[in-house]
Amino acid sequence: MNSQWGKKFKISVFGESHGDAIGVVIGGLPAGFEPDFTEVRRELQRRAPGQSDNATPRREADEFEILSGMLDGRTTGAPLMALCRNTDVRSRDYERHLPRPGHADLAAAIKYGGFNDYRGGGHFSGRLTAPVVFAGALARQLLRNAHGIEISADIIEIRGERSPDKFDDIISAARMAGDSVGGIIECRVRGAPAGWGEPIFHSVESSVSALLFSIPAVKGVEFGDGFALARRLGSEVSDGITVDNNGEIAFLANHNGGINGGITNGAELVFRAAIKPTPTISIPQKTVDLRTNEPVTHSFTGRHDPCIVPRAVPIVEAVAAIALAQYL
Amino acid sequence: MNSQWGKKFKISVFGESHGDAIGVVIGGLPAGFEPDFTEVRRELQRRAPGQSDNATPRREADEFEILSGMLDGRTTGAPLMALCRNTDVRSRDYERHLPRPGHADLAAAIKYGGFNDYRGGGHFSGRLTAPVVFAGALARQLLRNAHGIEISADIIEIRGERSPDKFDDIISAARMAGDSVGGIIECRVRGAPAGWGEPIFHSVESSVSALLFSIPAVKGVEFGDGFALARRLGSEVSDGITVDNNGEIAFLANHNGGINGGITNGAELVFRAAIKPTPTISIPQKTVDLRTNEPVTHSFTGRHDPCIVPRAVPIVEAVAAIALAQYL
Amino acid sequence: MNSQWGKKFKISVFGESHGDAIGVVIGGLPAGFEPDFTEVRRELQRRAPGQSDNATPRREADEFEILSGMLDGRTTGAPLMALCRNTDVRSRDYERHLPRPGHADLAAAIKYGGFNDYRGGGHFSGRLTAPVVFAGALARQLLRNAHGIEISADIIEIRGERSPDKFDDIISAARMAGDSVGGIIECRVRGAPAGWGEPIFHSVESSVSALLFSIPAVKGVEFGDGFALARRLGSEVSDGITVDNNGEIAFLANHNGGINGGITNGAELVFRAAIKPTPTISIPQKTVDLRTNEPVTHSFTGRHDPCIVPRAVPIVEAVAAIALAQYL
Amino acid sequence: MNSQWGKKFKISVFGESHGDAIGVVIGGLPAGFEPDFTEVRRELQRRAPGQSDNATPRREADEFEILSGMLDGRTTGAPLMALCRNTDVRSRDYERHLPRPGHADLAAAIKYGGFNDYRGGGHFSGRLTAPVVFAGALARQLLRNAHGIEISADIIEIRGERSPDKFDDIISAARMAGDSVGGIIECRVRGAPAGWGEPIFHSVESSVSALLFSIPAVKGVEFGDGFALARRLGSEVSDGITVDNNGEIAFLANHNGGINGGITNGAELVFRAAIKPTPTISIPQKTVDLRTNEPVTHSFTGRHDPCIVPRAVPIVEAVAAIALAQYL
Repeated sequence: MNSQWGKKFKISVFGESHGDAIGVVIGGLPAGFEPDFTEVRRELQRRAPGQSDNATPRREADEFEILSGMLDGRTTGAPLMALCRNTDVRSRDYERHLPRPGHADLAAAIKYGGFNDYRGGGHFSGRLTAPVVFAGALARQLLRNAHGIEISADIIEIRGERSPDKFDDIISAARMAGDSVGGIIECRVRGAPAGWGEPIFHSVESSVSALLFSIPAVKGVEFGDGFALARRLGSEVSDGITVDNNGEIAFLANHNGGINGGITNGAELVFRAAIKPTPTISIPQKTVDLRTNEPVTHSFTGRHDPCIVPRAVPIVEAVAAIALAQYL
Repeated sequence: MNSQWGKKFKISVFGESHGDAIGVVIGGLPAGFEPDFTEVRRELQRRAPGQSDNATPRREADEFEILSGMLDGRTTGAPLMALCRNTDVRSRDYERHLPRPGHADLAAAIKYGGFNDYRGGGHFSGRLTAPVVFAGALARQLLRNAHGIEISADIIEIRGERSPDKFDDIISAARMAGDSVGGIIECRVRGAPAGWGEPIFHSVESSVSALLFSIPAVKGVEFGDGFALARRLGSEVSDGITVDNNGEIAFLANHNGGINGGITNGAELVFRAAIKPTPTISIPQKTVDLRTNEPVTHSFTGRHDPCIVPRAVPIVEAVAAIALAQYL
Repeated sequence: MNSQWGKKFKISVFGESHGDAIGVVIGGLPAGFEPDFTEVRRELQRRAPGQSDNATPRREADEFEILSGMLDGRTTGAPLMALCRNTDVRSRDYERHLPRPGHADLAAAIKYGGFNDYRGGGHFSGRLTAPVVFAGALARQLLRNAHGIEISADIIEIRGERSPDKFDDIISAARMAGDSVGGIIECRVRGAPAGWGEPIFHSVESSVSALLFSIPAVKGVEFGDGFALARRLGSEVSDGITVDNNGEIAFLANHNGGINGGITNGAELVFRAAIKPTPTISIPQKTVDLRTNEPVTHSFTGRHDPCIVPRAVPIVEAVAAIALAQYL
Repeated sequence: MNSQWGKKFKISVFGESHGDAIGVVIGGLPAGFEPDFTEVRRELQRRAPGQSDNATPRREADEFEILSGMLDGRTTGAPLMALCRNTDVRSRDYERHLPRPGHADLAAAIKYGGFNDYRGGGHFSGRLTAPVVFAGALARQLLRNAHGIEISADIIEIRGERSPDKFDDIISAARMAGDSVGGIIECRVRGAPAGWGEPIFHSVESSVSALLFSIPAVKGVEFGDGFALARRLGSEVSDGITVDNNGEIAFLANHNGGINGGITNGAELVFRAAIKPTPTISIPQKTVDLRTNEPVTHSFTGRHDPCIVPRAVPIVEAVAAIALAQYL
């Protein structure tokens, strides 16, 4: 298992949910870059648990300490290592012999012969998205500095509901029922120049989707109109090309989400990720006691969000930034 | 641009739609493997144009010649190179200065400073999926030999219609209108053992989606219930774990499409790809004459399918096989 | 086995000595580059067999056909595939059951379970350096165009003799005795800018040496004074830094061969490769008949150079160019 | 800059000589492996400074703390992160504006625009070999467990002298003269099975040499008889093949150091690395004051070994182990 990604902006993530620490080594940062750590902390805070009644009561400071790659507030060009010690760990909530349906527990136990760190999902935990958000926060600053690129994601659906006014109520209801809900996040990237990406295997869609699917609970990804495109006529979804008032090439529509043939075309990038409901719910579920190989019904009681969609918003932005930073 | 993919089963694709040839170098094949080339040709035939009234009238024999990596009918362990000369090329159908909306033409012209091979889409053409199908056909034989794995994809929607009886009519209607339609392909993989894939960046979903998005016209990918999962309660989509009659671990449902935490869990793999309508239609579209920078309305008249979904079915199977062959 | 190298200038080599063809797919070429194929052919000619009485009598035209990646004499940005059909193949010279000492025959038979193409060394053959020279010829043109970089290699020793006047006599004597000799090639690169390479694992020395050791028969590599450095005092081999008449940083010596800490320092790059004597000689050698597992003494009679050092000179230049093209 | 290496056994090194910490993330470790940390510490101790009168007086505990990837004394399959805080750092010994001849100082200043951490060589420092030795110590345990492989390196020359009895005297003399000496290390690997490595670009020689040249001060690498091979007749260096008393294939000589065609042949692996004299000596050297661009003569007075060859021995063994662990 090697949790590394990227060819230019290269990240190597480590740690476990209930281990000593989590962190990331970032390679490929330019020398002389002066990160805005206030913004980095703000991004981490958006992802952090314990911020609302509807989120998991686990509280993590998510304070990353930078142990290499910087000198006098600037990057040196050497790998930057950021470390975050875990606190508030309650391992007794987890039991190795009862794999949680919908979680990696069973697949990981088989893959690693039972030696994986099962506590809180171990290396599979959503907690590992914190170092990803850290790295993404640096990537988005590089993108902004170089091209004025802005990335922003929003929840567009919770449990099928599209009115934001109702999101909190739906989540609260799920929480009170001991149940969970999912939703859909839409991300838009403004300012990416035309010509990024490669044909065939290294299309922008390939890179962005690979990273989106690395976020736990993402089960669907679409670009532009996505699945809806498959239900339209070609003539209805033509992204006509024109010339704007400045004599620049422009588009009359953006059904393709800013990507043609795997390459950015200069239009806004638009993509969506479908997040499934948190599989850990207190409503009893069927599982198997791995000690006895007997089916059991169990109520899983760890501290969990009834809906991780709000916390996934900054993660979607982070992976978008990491994917695009490859093209700098 | 390097059209390479894979770490173990490694492919390097080359060629252009209207160039001399297309082909693929395949690395990582085991020595002593005796490919069934009758089956390979059958897969290529499924993808080939010119098979029905509804498909492009371009006819390509798609006969690949193997120039390295085999001796006496068996792989040697050295890279296998398969070459297919292009025939029936009519470049005059394409005009460099009129980028087709929804195609890579404009993005590629910007990326490559106008030096890209624009004829028929060049290296961006769907024709490059032929070597991918060739490689995929070998990969699926390896998967079958090693684990009895079977991969099969089907069209489940054309222009939103789910009844297969109506697919031909919808496509014919589009063709007669000079228009095009898209659809959705579902792929199922039986027999993949539990424990394949890696947590975080190299999840099975990441690998499969990266390859699916390398197929031209794919704009959405989902696993298991995918986007529909985002609209359900956690309690409704619990893939309960149980023990079957043989005392083996089994699942009571498969909303997650056989993958948890990025790792196969032993259940059937299920995923879907959304294919957009072919952007080349004879209904006039808005574009810009790159010689004059003037907007024009143009009817693009190349030989094109009104619906590439049927031809994409074997391609989806091929990339699924290539993605999974990494885990052998 | 995947004979690929490179991250930016990416090559994928295929073919066998006595198979149908050899060739290379080159990714990462910039679009719009107009290669000088007269120069490419000249480089190939320098490497080609059959040029002197002292070289193998096998004659190969080594004419590469370019089947993708070019349009109207310029690169398109898509992968360039160059193919060379084999001619003048006499497989009966080789016998699978008698592994040649010092060759890959035995190791390959074990690695590939006897399925490797043993004819003339198959994929292990020095013939595979022809596509490497092809790729290197393009790389050196890119380096020259971008930075005026010039690469040139020379034989500095044959069988320990340093006077070039005597090289031919030594080789002739070896040929007449049915024996073989090796030698040392020195390569110098002028014009590489300071700052290329990475600390630690991706040092210029690491990259160049990895490629030099991919040339069959290379058994030693050194940079600057190399092994001789290990025998001197630090004070004797200090590459003092100064300022030249133009006010530019300059060096008072170049014991380090233009590389410090894995990074080019702007001085000339200097390195050497030791080439062993050709292991195929007609003087009888001890081997084992793999059919009977009995020791035998055998005289190997294939058409072979008594000294491959002269033909290796353009190969050393080629791999130097390929290694450095990564930094463009 | 990304200090990562490996495809299976994957390491990502970070840190600076005079920064907060150094460390390594190791991916690809099997789950359930129980490392012997007593042995790891012993390897680190062999590399550590401050062990003899002849070594640098800097003292580092080199105690690595493991922050991820282990549970109950066994690896979990997740990335293992090992961290070592720096102590006894005296940055005032280093001056940014006076680049040390033979060091990366000048090349790094150019490469990173002056933003690199110059203190003690920063990320270029030999101190970064400590995490490499840590990773290598795990790799050699894996090799021993899997195949009984044993790796051992020895000094065979100091300043050209081959008698070990005189090594200490030579080093002492250099130290007293404010000078430095280099030497040659030979490494032998017993037990590597036949068939490891790939033809052409991923030969065992390519991998091992790439890693050896990542050790600061290594300027030459040779396999088997290496450069001496280039001075012999083919008939003199034939590694005849025979059958031993157990009916197993064996070799009558090992001039090729256990590697043919880039593939291990089952014989002992033998290779050597040439280590240059430490460039930091107190004898005055010529350099340039980068503030004034004026040539100056300067005596560099940091705490340095007059000969790093003894400390490089465990590093050579470590990189050999890391290179070979790719084939497990």
